[in-house]
Amino acid sequence: MNAAYYVGNKTIKLGESKIVPPKSNEVQIRVAYAGICGTDLHIYEGKMDNRVTMPHVPGHECSGIVINKGEDVTNVSISDKVVIRPLGYCGKCEGCLTGLSHICYNMNFLGADSDGCMQEYWTVPAHMVYKIPDMPLERAALVEPLAVACHDVSMSGLQFGETALVIGGGPIGLLIAMVARDAGANVVISEINEFRINLAKDLGFDVINPMKEDLVKKIFDMTNGYGVDVVFEVSGSEMGVSTMTKVAKARGRIVQVAIFSEPAAVDLRTVFFRELRIFGARVYEHKDYTRAINLAASDRLPLERIVSRIEPLSRLGEVLEELTSKNTNDMKVLIQCSE
Amino acid sequence: MNAAYYVGNKTIKLGESKIVPPKSNEVQIRVAYAGICGTDLHIYEGKMDNRVTMPHVPGHECSGIVINKGEDVTNVSISDKVVIRPLGYCGKCEGCLTGLSHICYNMNFLGADSDGCMQEYWTVPAHMVYKIPDMPLERAALVEPLAVACHDVSMSGLQFGETALVIGGGPIGLLIAMVARDAGANVVISEINEFRINLAKDLGFDVINPMKEDLVKKIFDMTNGYGVDVVFEVSGSEMGVSTMTKVAKARGRIVQVAIFSEPAAVDLRTVFFRELRIFGARVYEHKDYTRAINLAASDRLPLERIVSRIEPLSRLGEVLEELTSKNTNDMKVLIQCSE
Repeated sequence: MNAAYYVGNKTIKLGESKIVPPKSNEVQIRVAYAGICGTDLHIYEGKMDNRVTMPHVPGHECSGIVINKGEDVTNVSISDKVVIRPLGYCGKCEGCLTGLSHICYNMNFLGADSDGCMQEYWTVPAHMVYKIPDMPLERAALVEPLAVACHDVSMSGLQFGETALVIGGGPIGLLIAMVARDAGANVVISEINEFRINLAKDLGFDVINPMKEDLVKKIFDMTNGYGVDVVFEVSGSEMGVSTMTKVAKARGRIVQVAIFSEPAAVDLRTVFFRELRIFGARVYEHKDYTRAINLAASDRLPLERIVSRIEPLSRLGEVLEELTSKNTNDMKVLIQCSE
Repeated sequence: MNAAYYVGNKTIKLGESKIVPPKSNEVQIRVAYAGICGTDLHIYEGKMDNRVTMPHVPGHECSGIVINKGEDVTNVSISDKVVIRPLGYCGKCEGCLTGLSHICYNMNFLGADSDGCMQEYWTVPAHMVYKIPDMPLERAALVEPLAVACHDVSMSGLQFGETALVIGGGPIGLLIAMVARDAGANVVISEINEFRINLAKDLGFDVINPMKEDLVKKIFDMTNGYGVDVVFEVSGSEMGVSTMTKVAKARGRIVQVAIFSEPAAVDLRTVFFRELRIFGARVYEHKDYTRAINLAASDRLPLERIVSRIEPLSRLGEVLEELTSKNTNDMKVLIQCSE
């Protein structure tokens, strides 16, 4: 019973992990740890029922070990510790052909468009598999969200000494804050949840709770009335969207990290008057993965601090129910997919 | 009676143009032609009553001739033909000190925050005055809106061979289209007004009327289903905002040219998924003025085609009433401010 299947109606069924012999360009890995992402919660809640094919194995953040590979695979060897960049791009569309395969028009995003990593054995194309230096596999499972953070910071064009506001201090927000601080920026986090506020403060960040303090005024006080160089909108909230244009300085950059299900009211007047720049930022490029692997392999960032618990695969259904129904005070939850 | 004063309540009063002797760093010009801009219409309609000081001389687009100058002025001489970049920046704020004086935090925009050019004599700081090569002063009066177009195209990062959609075929939209085409782009214009559609077609542009055709489908048909490289949102309409994210290709750039009085519903989900980039673009930088002057001095663009009529200063009040109350089928209207 070493695979988890979403079968609809907020139900996870445990079953056998299908052993798929790797083709010539494929790698079979034994998944060690898989992180639960917002996408997995959406799948569990049925919000992506029109996209997933049931029974569906969720999960796209993981670490593992190579246990088999096709004859043409050269980038990894048996027993290598690896992480997966779960992007099945077509290689033929306008996105792929212009160097933007991470926004492929025909993307097969593993864990959503096809089966993911919440199982013991997972066979994937070799180009998705990155060998990692020796590090705990729990930490390696954070490479995927860390690569998101690296992509977001990279897209912002952040430079050392700049000021950045991260709106939303969840796992991705905290990782962005860590990467931005490591890149030499002065980082402030906006967050409303006391558990997350305390964790962010523990990690040494300035945190503003916009429900209790005047965020815009505080940002202006901190920046001589001009605003921050970069805003990361990670909250996906109306308040986040209305705040992001208020606090950005002249020609400030706003990185749109959160996914909005509905159009949001953006103050285009201020976008015009301050020449603000809004950058959509989706997943990660190859270079973000190599950066994230290097960062994870170093001791520069307190990555493990965002892991609030590690649960066995057999408990995935209960954990998803907890995460979607209660205020669990969780940050990142890892699922152990094999012993 | 060679000056026009807005005195509130949709009323223009004619009066004397105050002759202000130039200080050491100022230039006195005799205004030849002044273009009517949307800002002037807003002033006339009372929408900027909290910003203008009445009686207020509107106007910020003009050509003229230097008739006097202070002793420290070296950039122009008496009798030079000139245009004005009407930006009174402070030189001290974060915008100015980071090379963005055109988005100065303490901007005095001439014609709005202080008296403008709808008068015969106008004394302005020398740094705002640009000597122009010999060209008709009617054409020179278009340098200011042409500089807006140069700024918008420059901000978009447009490159030759790219595709661009201009949403809104008014004076600024047509100037953007001209500059973008001159820069080697394939330009399509979206416009709903038949008069403007016909003018744009006369100028050789592909024009789509989104009220009669499926704009998004046509754009996709023209771009192999991928969308355009650059969108210029010049319409200031809900339809424009909803369209701009639909038609931009992966990592396409959207330049926000129109001024929105209220927050607009932006599809941030598509901004995320396609990694779109929205750039606010306000007025112009020095380099946009020199480009616009060079373009106007050449015969590369059919600039005068956007001028629908030239009226005497004495008729300004009637013309503003016409432009704000009727469908006049006007594009740019020039006001002759001196003989």
